[in-house]
Amino acid sequence: MEPTTGDLTDPLINHADGQLFLHEAFKIIVEDVLCKGTDVKEKVCEWREPEELARLLDLELREKGEPQENLLQRVRDVAKYSIKTSHPRFFNQQFAGVDYHSLAGRFLSEALNTNLFTYEVAPVFVLMEAEVLRGLRALVGWTEGDGLFCPGGSTSNMYAMNLARYRLYPEVKSQGLRSLPQLTVFTSPESHYSVKKGAAFMGFGMDNVILVKVDDGGRMIPEDLDEKIELSKSQGAVPFLVSCTSGTTVQGAFDPLDLIADVCDKHKLWLHVDAAWGGSVLFSKKHSHLMKGVHRANSVAWNPHKMLVAGLQCSVLLLKDTTDLLKKCHCANATYLFQQDKFYDVNLDIGDKSVQCSRKVDCLKLWLMWKAVGSAGLEQRVDKAFLHARYVVDQMKKREGFQLLGDPQFVNVCFWFIPPSLRGKEKNADYQNKLAKVAPVIKERMMKQGTMMVGYQPLGDRVNFFRITILSPLVSQKDMDFFLDEIERLGNDL
Amino acid sequence: MEPTTGDLTDPLINHADGQLFLHEAFKIIVEDVLCKGTDVKEKVCEWREPEELARLLDLELREKGEPQENLLQRVRDVAKYSIKTSHPRFFNQQFAGVDYHSLAGRFLSEALNTNLFTYEVAPVFVLMEAEVLRGLRALVGWTEGDGLFCPGGSTSNMYAMNLARYRLYPEVKSQGLRSLPQLTVFTSPESHYSVKKGAAFMGFGMDNVILVKVDDGGRMIPEDLDEKIELSKSQGAVPFLVSCTSGTTVQGAFDPLDLIADVCDKHKLWLHVDAAWGGSVLFSKKHSHLMKGVHRANSVAWNPHKMLVAGLQCSVLLLKDTTDLLKKCHCANATYLFQQDKFYDVNLDIGDKSVQCSRKVDCLKLWLMWKAVGSAGLEQRVDKAFLHARYVVDQMKKREGFQLLGDPQFVNVCFWFIPPSLRGKEKNADYQNKLAKVAPVIKERMMKQGTMMVGYQPLGDRVNFFRITILSPLVSQKDMDFFLDEIERLGNDL
Ligand SMILES: Cc1ncc(COP(=O)(O)O)c(C=O)c1O
Ligand SMILES: Cc1ncc(COP(=O)(O)O)c(C=O)c1O
Repeated sequence: MEPTTGDLTDPLINHADGQLFLHEAFKIIVEDVLCKGTDVKEKVCEWREPEELARLLDLELREKGEPQENLLQRVRDVAKYSIKTSHPRFFNQQFAGVDYHSLAGRFLSEALNTNLFTYEVAPVFVLMEAEVLRGLRALVGWTEGDGLFCPGGSTSNMYAMNLARYRLYPEVKSQGLRSLPQLTVFTSPESHYSVKKGAAFMGFGMDNVILVKVDDGGRMIPEDLDEKIELSKSQGAVPFLVSCTSGTTVQGAFDPLDLIADVCDKHKLWLHVDAAWGGSVLFSKKHSHLMKGVHRANSVAWNPHKMLVAGLQCSVLLLKDTTDLLKKCHCANATYLFQQDKFYDVNLDIGDKSVQCSRKVDCLKLWLMWKAVGSAGLEQRVDKAFLHARYVVDQMKKREGFQLLGDPQFVNVCFWFIPPSLRGKEKNADYQNKLAKVAPVIKERMMKQGTMMVGYQPLGDRVNFFRITILSPLVSQKDMDFFLDEIERLGNDL
Repeated sequence: MEPTTGDLTDPLINHADGQLFLHEAFKIIVEDVLCKGTDVKEKVCEWREPEELARLLDLELREKGEPQENLLQRVRDVAKYSIKTSHPRFFNQQFAGVDYHSLAGRFLSEALNTNLFTYEVAPVFVLMEAEVLRGLRALVGWTEGDGLFCPGGSTSNMYAMNLARYRLYPEVKSQGLRSLPQLTVFTSPESHYSVKKGAAFMGFGMDNVILVKVDDGGRMIPEDLDEKIELSKSQGAVPFLVSCTSGTTVQGAFDPLDLIADVCDKHKLWLHVDAAWGGSVLFSKKHSHLMKGVHRANSVAWNPHKMLVAGLQCSVLLLKDTTDLLKKCHCANATYLFQQDKFYDVNLDIGDKSVQCSRKVDCLKLWLMWKAVGSAGLEQRVDKAFLHARYVVDQMKKREGFQLLGDPQFVNVCFWFIPPSLRGKEKNADYQNKLAKVAPVIKERMMKQGTMMVGYQPLGDRVNFFRITILSPLVSQKDMDFFLDEIERLGNDL
């Protein structure tokens, strides 16, 4: 190291200047993102081709900094060309809308900028995370247990796999998979792709994810599960985990948990419930029956950043386990972080439960929102989303040109729009081909005009259809009506 | 589904009320977190025993919501009892300080609440992430390549392992590890624990992480690496990855990359550089020599949320690869998200490169900060942190009672405080035992008085010592002086 030189008397950042900038940026955020961005008279998106957008944004990072006015203009530009995911006409993903209490919690988390690994640096959040997990576990039906906020449902699904194999073969942690028998995972073809990704990442291999048949609505068939498990055993493999879905990504199907739990009991398998999308029904007295039997699971993944509008990222893994499996499975006992001679109860240093080291504070936003509206308020939102979905379905049945994939179980409404030119032509040889091309064109038009956003996809042998997911507490019936009118407007000439 | 009932005319959230709350919360954040929280006349922490803190915070989640005034008081309470990580006397972790441009970027990301998987929902951020990764890769010395923002350095380290094994055995993705030979990873005992955690999580097993000897400063010894690789081969294993560290967590050591790259070349191993902590030296013309040879690596993990003060989480994986390995290794081709018949170039839909599905926008905060101060501004911060560390070291040498572990290579300064009662007693049989107890007591006192925060740990046979990490652009020389005085004040009677 060279000797001390240079001026060390002043810090490099001036608080007054910085706070002034923050104030100005805050004003833009409120005006452009929260006001204009939720105004139905404004666009959902300002579509630009990538080359043009790159030019407009002037993204290049340079040697020299820029004046504050430039930077504020950049804040405006980022807001302008970003998708308004809180807009009442954004139906494109499993998140939408904005909750102001959650957003305040997110700003506070960002300003406090701490790390959820020890009580020392995150006293408030260690306790708060535990309380939020407790509250969510109570909805599952567990008075005890464990859990963790994860950077997403995909990660939670991986954790479940790791815990299940560790429970069966604790030596896997030190010795790896090589000395173990072939391990197989069971899930439905309509489950989220993260089950397969996880199996690859964790060394099981995607081929060891065995797909169990579903019924027409996309629900796993327990009898087929039982048969597939028997078959896998007879081939010398060791089935170890069933990953059910509560609220599948596309159709919103709920696997029959109680019947599947019977099969898992019979074969002594770990039952994981991927409720990333559907978990929020547990807030609703009316709809929680969709997850009947969930208390029999070993683990549940649930994303409050989806239906509860908590803001990305907010995702939990919940565990029934009370034997400290999470910590045993993941700990590395780093002495620089988890000193055992601390002056407080080191069980509060929860970081070693995680495979992350730094872990963002994702509990505050959910906690503050929950405090603000109560379980009753969250229940009301869930119930209302169901009502909106029901309303859309009812309207679709009344309108020519909308054909449902099936009667929705949840807030996903999957449908084809059949333009006038194709109506009554179902028997034509090229009907399916032509129908497959409808959704992409309507989608392109809506994006370029910026009027709304909704996604489409094929599923198995069903060609491209739209999936509208209705969850935002900011929408009302007239947004549903607009949606239907707009699909017709955009597609009637096709 | 039941029929439509209930009132669907009004949304459940009122924007005016919500924005009013957000304004009030913003004021509290500025006042309590950013002003008081960075004021040296205020405490770094308000220590409370967990039971008392839980009572003060009233964490319980209830059926009914609360009035706005209550909620604002909760915002105040969370701020009050949280650690002030931006305070100039917070030296406890590898993050500290606040950058207002980054913070504005974080607020904007939170308000825009989108997901980095497709161009469709994140047009600005798909392009921006690519540009930031390009800028960081340029510092590594790569004009081409690939990369991804990850939820932390631990995750990036895991990705590197997955890519390295996939390059060697692409069939691992479908078939898993069972049919492969025993795979071994090489790293130093001073590397971050995430290498071991990753090896367990990904099915290699921790025992297959082979520890290479380090010199006194904590740097990996290339000759020992070569020998350990040969030994592992002779035992029938297949060495496949070396994980070097640029800036070890405790000592801040930089492994000699050029020499290690030679060994990797010889054995055709993937060279991963964990520069989560030290990567920021690449901004500095003066100090980038510490990572000489980094361009020869296959992958680099780097956390701008640490030394660059970008805010948690901000972490990248950088790759030299130009063959789309990242996507090939991780893709699952989910048709509901990555439709191939979109109206724009679907290569912009980068989500399938990741094992996450939802992925937070972590690039904006870094981009805006970089735009604000330029590469030159970031260089200045890095250089200044080195100067501060040098200053502290110089002062310690002048003061009785401070004993350095060694001459720091980086901004970690590791030292024992030897209280007067122990000075000159180095030969006593119980000296090490007594010395080991000093740091925990000083730590307890500083936390309870709230005057500052710094961490301690043992390392190998070296008993508890303090590690101060100096990185915040908010500190100045008087904070360093305060630090030294305060350690003396707290420890002189021990
Ligand atoms: C059923 C289901 N499981 C898991 C996930 C993945 O969650 P995340 O995006 O948080 O990784 C999703 C979200 O897309 C989902 O719909
Ligand atoms: C050298 C090193 N590598 C990796 C990590 C892990 O990074 P993260 O905390 O983002 O997972 C750390 C941080 O603690 C580190 O110091």
